[in-house]
Amino acid sequence: MKHEDPAAYRALVRPRGARHVDVIDQRALPHTLVRIKIASADAAALAIRKMWIRGAPLIGAVGAYGLALALDRDATDGALAAAFAIMDGTRPTAVNLRWALERVRAKVAPLAVGDRADAAWAEADDIAAEDMAMNHAIGENGIGILRAVAQRRPGPVRVMTHCNAGALATCGWGTATSPLFLAHLEGLALEVWVSETRPRLQGANLTAWELGQRGIPHTLVADSACPLLMQRGDVDIVIVGADRVARNGDVCNKIGTYGKALAARESNVPFYVALPSPTIDWRLPSGDGIPIEVRDGDEVTNVSGRDDYGQTVRVAIAPHNTKAQNFAFDVTPARLVTGFVTERGITRASREWLSAMFPDRS
Amino acid sequence: MKHEDPAAYRALVRPRGARHVDVIDQRALPHTLVRIKIASADAAALAIRKMWIRGAPLIGAVGAYGLALALDRDATDGALAAAFAIMDGTRPTAVNLRWALERVRAKVAPLAVGDRADAAWAEADDIAAEDMAMNHAIGENGIGILRAVAQRRPGPVRVMTHCNAGALATCGWGTATSPLFLAHLEGLALEVWVSETRPRLQGANLTAWELGQRGIPHTLVADSACPLLMQRGDVDIVIVGADRVARNGDVCNKIGTYGKALAARESNVPFYVALPSPTIDWRLPSGDGIPIEVRDGDEVTNVSGRDDYGQTVRVAIAPHNTKAQNFAFDVTPARLVTGFVTERGITRASREWLSAMFPDRS
Repeated sequence: MKHEDPAAYRALVRPRGARHVDVIDQRALPHTLVRIKIASADAAALAIRKMWIRGAPLIGAVGAYGLALALDRDATDGALAAAFAIMDGTRPTAVNLRWALERVRAKVAPLAVGDRADAAWAEADDIAAEDMAMNHAIGENGIGILRAVAQRRPGPVRVMTHCNAGALATCGWGTATSPLFLAHLEGLALEVWVSETRPRLQGANLTAWELGQRGIPHTLVADSACPLLMQRGDVDIVIVGADRVARNGDVCNKIGTYGKALAARESNVPFYVALPSPTIDWRLPSGDGIPIEVRDGDEVTNVSGRDDYGQTVRVAIAPHNTKAQNFAFDVTPARLVTGFVTERGITRASREWLSAMFPDRS
Repeated sequence: MKHEDPAAYRALVRPRGARHVDVIDQRALPHTLVRIKIASADAAALAIRKMWIRGAPLIGAVGAYGLALALDRDATDGALAAAFAIMDGTRPTAVNLRWALERVRAKVAPLAVGDRADAAWAEADDIAAEDMAMNHAIGENGIGILRAVAQRRPGPVRVMTHCNAGALATCGWGTATSPLFLAHLEGLALEVWVSETRPRLQGANLTAWELGQRGIPHTLVADSACPLLMQRGDVDIVIVGADRVARNGDVCNKIGTYGKALAARESNVPFYVALPSPTIDWRLPSGDGIPIEVRDGDEVTNVSGRDDYGQTVRVAIAPHNTKAQNFAFDVTPARLVTGFVTERGITRASREWLSAMFPDRS
């Protein structure tokens, strides 16, 4: 069945014919829904770097629109190169960003300077539309896994997620959430374990909000409770997203993914990674070469939330001047991954299987 | 070498001859050091239940003093039974509490009513003094493990902890921290990875504070970053405490311990549990029978910390009315534990080895 992801849930919208895009400011969630207008390349770069928007597929699309915005001002070769470098430097781990930027550049570079901006906008639109279509296909391909669990025993299918691989991380539907959203639309009963995802709490702030908006039952847990839940037999399946997947199937994703994969293997819980193919970095032989972003330790020593008066407040949770280490991602070896859910179908996490599913890319 | 744990760091002090105890209010840490007077059994029960004080050994001692306080008011059989039931019901998981309460009851029950209160105070004093002595012995027994790492390679010994098994969890020295404190006093260079320990953040609030007070270098990390740090080879050894250990060596400890143990095994990092023998529940054949405390979901959906004005504020991190599950402990199977560091020495985590080390108890 073909569903339409409601525009109300979309993290990125380009109003018809506009030379700007509107994005949901994810800093304000889950307490307030605020859209902000991105009308310059600088604003796009800032939104990515400061994580007003995040999620590998969404970063890619906003990066593409950032290039288009830059070319509206100056479409010469030098300006294109400068804008590419700025957008590409915003966040190092997600491969979709580089992929989207290269795609726009390849499209516009051969054109006359005066034609470049319009072509960049059209290409960014295509990237966004294709992302939504790929995610819908991921949902259709993943829903069978959930149905199989539902047929095995009564009660809701208990799915564990991590971070936010939802609509807010993409141009629509999300990656890991897409099978859930489609299953819910088709009446399959779900119960989702939402892992809060310290330090930035994308699970608590974003995934819980998305599931709540769509009426899908869910329960928030501390990240470190997840291995216990699997040990107790309270989890049927884990589905996470990815920021970059190496050619051999190693998965780079939000910090905490690797620990979940270890616990899943220990308790024989299937561990799936949902990803659109632009997340695969065919140039990378294994996860060893993935640059892992180290973010500011302040994200660990502080927590933002809403106080009793409805104000968003940042509070310190550690002694003044405590040093913190803040790796934003980790690498899960392919051997811990049960399968990849892609827009073309489900495949094993290995070089051979990935190449067989994407012979045109590898 | 025999060191003295400075009284300034002690979570529990009975002023000489007083009929009350003073405890550090752990809700105010790490921002303010506040001592509160516990002058009634009700106050002792409240302090334990509400976690103004926590940590299995400290709960045991405060529980014992709570019985003494009750007997000061009324030392009849009925009052003793009632006070026992109230103190015993405060927190279900730590076995030290029940052990201490039974020890006081066994001491005072045979006595004339008029002699019971003084005897209870004396017994509680003994429990507290013995706890400090046992923890010092744990430190002396554990320091050899750290020295062995230091001899293997240059640089500080990199130790990972979880939650707070420090002086604040005991009557002095702590359990997991005792080898660290003694090693530091002897000049061994350390670098401690402090896992923040959501939901209540005892790592960030308490362990980081204790290590800072004593001048031991440390770095705070999100709980879910710990598997990555082990995978990277940045951790030489993990040492945690325990709330209850079954006869077969299964370890019940703060939620998140089990996930750390899985990651340690995967990366061949030695995983030690430090415990005084009252933490062993000889009546329990395995970890399956340990009652796991489920605390209020509000602890997951909210975080307390200090705002920019120095006020302690609780902030909501999830959408209003989000349901949360809050298991406070998990069970780590004995097979994942490299060894126990006890007051009598280091032993393997198995029924045979535990019984051999404590033939008088088992």
